[in-house]
Amino acid sequence: MKIEAIDLFYIALPEVTRAADSSQDSLVVRVTADNGLIGWGESDGSPLGNISAFVMPMSHGNIINLNESLLGETIDSPEDVVRLRAKAGRYALDLQQVDHAVSGVDVALWDLLGKYLGEPVYRLLGYETSYPKLPYSSVLFGETPAETQRIAERIRSDGYNAAKFGWSPMGEGTLEDDVALIAAAREGLGAGPKLMIDAGVIWGSDDGAVFERTERFAEFDVTWLEEPLLPDEVDAYRRLKDRRPSIAIAAGEGCDFYRAAEDLMVNGGVDYLQIDVARIGGITIADRVCRRAQELGVTYVNHNYKSHLTVAASIHIFAGVEEFKLFEYPDGVSPLIRGLTAPTGIFVNSDGMVQASDAPGLGVEANVDTIRQYLRQVRIEVDGKVLYETPVV
Amino acid sequence: MKIEAIDLFYIALPEVTRAADSSQDSLVVRVTADNGLIGWGESDGSPLGNISAFVMPMSHGNIINLNESLLGETIDSPEDVVRLRAKAGRYALDLQQVDHAVSGVDVALWDLLGKYLGEPVYRLLGYETSYPKLPYSSVLFGETPAETQRIAERIRSDGYNAAKFGWSPMGEGTLEDDVALIAAAREGLGAGPKLMIDAGVIWGSDDGAVFERTERFAEFDVTWLEEPLLPDEVDAYRRLKDRRPSIAIAAGEGCDFYRAAEDLMVNGGVDYLQIDVARIGGITIADRVCRRAQELGVTYVNHNYKSHLTVAASIHIFAGVEEFKLFEYPDGVSPLIRGLTAPTGIFVNSDGMVQASDAPGLGVEANVDTIRQYLRQVRIEVDGKVLYETPVV
Repeated sequence: MKIEAIDLFYIALPEVTRAADSSQDSLVVRVTADNGLIGWGESDGSPLGNISAFVMPMSHGNIINLNESLLGETIDSPEDVVRLRAKAGRYALDLQQVDHAVSGVDVALWDLLGKYLGEPVYRLLGYETSYPKLPYSSVLFGETPAETQRIAERIRSDGYNAAKFGWSPMGEGTLEDDVALIAAAREGLGAGPKLMIDAGVIWGSDDGAVFERTERFAEFDVTWLEEPLLPDEVDAYRRLKDRRPSIAIAAGEGCDFYRAAEDLMVNGGVDYLQIDVARIGGITIADRVCRRAQELGVTYVNHNYKSHLTVAASIHIFAGVEEFKLFEYPDGVSPLIRGLTAPTGIFVNSDGMVQASDAPGLGVEANVDTIRQYLRQVRIEVDGKVLYETPVV
Repeated sequence: MKIEAIDLFYIALPEVTRAADSSQDSLVVRVTADNGLIGWGESDGSPLGNISAFVMPMSHGNIINLNESLLGETIDSPEDVVRLRAKAGRYALDLQQVDHAVSGVDVALWDLLGKYLGEPVYRLLGYETSYPKLPYSSVLFGETPAETQRIAERIRSDGYNAAKFGWSPMGEGTLEDDVALIAAAREGLGAGPKLMIDAGVIWGSDDGAVFERTERFAEFDVTWLEEPLLPDEVDAYRRLKDRRPSIAIAAGEGCDFYRAAEDLMVNGGVDYLQIDVARIGGITIADRVCRRAQELGVTYVNHNYKSHLTVAASIHIFAGVEEFKLFEYPDGVSPLIRGLTAPTGIFVNSDGMVQASDAPGLGVEANVDTIRQYLRQVRIEVDGKVLYETPVV
């Protein structure tokens, strides 16, 4: 089949706040083939920045937009998707934004191909079986240990068997303040459920400060300490690892391309690698990273905080790898998380586990009513020529 | 002083071709302070993509546009420029395009500050002396060895004492074909002038193929072999280095942020690191990379193929480091290379050397007539609100 149209929909809540919550907007990508089949995907990052990558005027042979590299192309096999991802990357080699922008269309192409071949994406990636994953609820600490404990109790009563607590006020007070927060989170969850801690890069490049924490946090059975250091500070991650901390270290959401992920694993020595399929360049690249993680003995985990289009895309990547058991499950209140798919995305089953769908493609469809409701009207003109105008959904 | 306005000018030649020639367009950045002083800079990459970074609607606390993070800010010292570069990066942490986009405004802020304090940028960076650099002319191989020899003879007669020959048809035929091209380039230059070879990533991840070439090319006194491998293939660069090739290895133009450059030096083992100030996030970041290169014993070289605004910005970064002697000097015919500054940018002196200006700031001013002549009219609207419209120059 041939790629006949690529339509981009910028959706956003009526009011976007400064909260570190990426479920406030999205760029939804619809790919239509000449046989009428449709694939869906979603890019993280700035919707306007990502739209630009599809329509920017050519600057030279290494800055050619995504529409130009993909429209009219043939896609009949997994090899075609991989080929087109490489072509898009080559045509836009000198566009920094290319990885975020291409993520949504790469996901949509895998969805489209799965529908065409009647296979779920994980099978297209060469896996036979889809293993269940343990979803973890991702929340912020309370302002105090007591409030943190109440949040943990709520999560437990919601049926989750794993939770991740994130950043402020951790790292803003004393070491003992931090320990009290972790103790409260564990107290609220009770023994048993997995507890992860997200430090939100609070210790910059200070591996010594991180090591002090890991040694104190360990008694609360913490599965990992996430992003204790800045993404650029790969050497500091290595120094931390060389101290042999008593808790595993996780990082990776900021990886925008394959090498950044490999660098964190090989040189940073992280134990858990957290990859966002809507940022790193789509399923094609996340799959490559996931295989490299297996070679290196690093545990792959998804990172996502967008809609169930991305939740679905995320799970197919490592559905077939039994030993990668944890799954980040966006648990926020934005209608763009669960409302963007119909019927509503990926469920937690009665065992508290999630699993990739066996339906063709991603296994979820976009809800066009939601797209219509939150759609922003964008218009980009250069020298009087309209390069982009929000399409009809 | 305070930052009162940031104006963006997208300029382009009337016809942009697929040639790998980044002097066909540009995004010129003008920063105006409340005291009337003006600073100029330029970003490489897609002009439309870069404009988006200045005006994109907020997505959440880590995707806030560059105008929001910089307008109204105070700048009185080098520490202020470094602080604002960090602020812009933090506000746009999850915008992939941020480094390309912020490059031009970071350069403009250094220019502005230099004018305010009456100092050339290299002194603001802490250097006392500006050392002369040897410029090299950057050209493509001819289709045949004979044609390559004629090009080399022309460069020599133009007075250059160094030249870099780039990519096709090298790597497309046999090893002997490649050797014949290098031999012809050396024959045309004669003994003495430096000869560099740019492989344009032709050998992908095949360090063995590269090693075969370095051992054969060495007899022609080649200063470096540039980008023999893909930017992502840092492990392949390391394998190549471990073979102890007889020619130095250069790479780095694709580095979009600090860690990518550090990774290539520490893990890739490159001998020459080529940094584009208009891509890596401006003078602030290029300066940090340059200092790290000194620590690691790697030779820093500029990469640029835009106007003399960027040529000027490039030289200030390592003007004060005597042992970094080579300078990439864009030698193309595009009017956007020499025509964008008035008087015309940085000259090669009678000794064939270039040197950073001692005038305040970058030492060059933009030519507004050229901007007017090549200006593209851009308009970006979201929900009927105009986010960007090409300003009057």
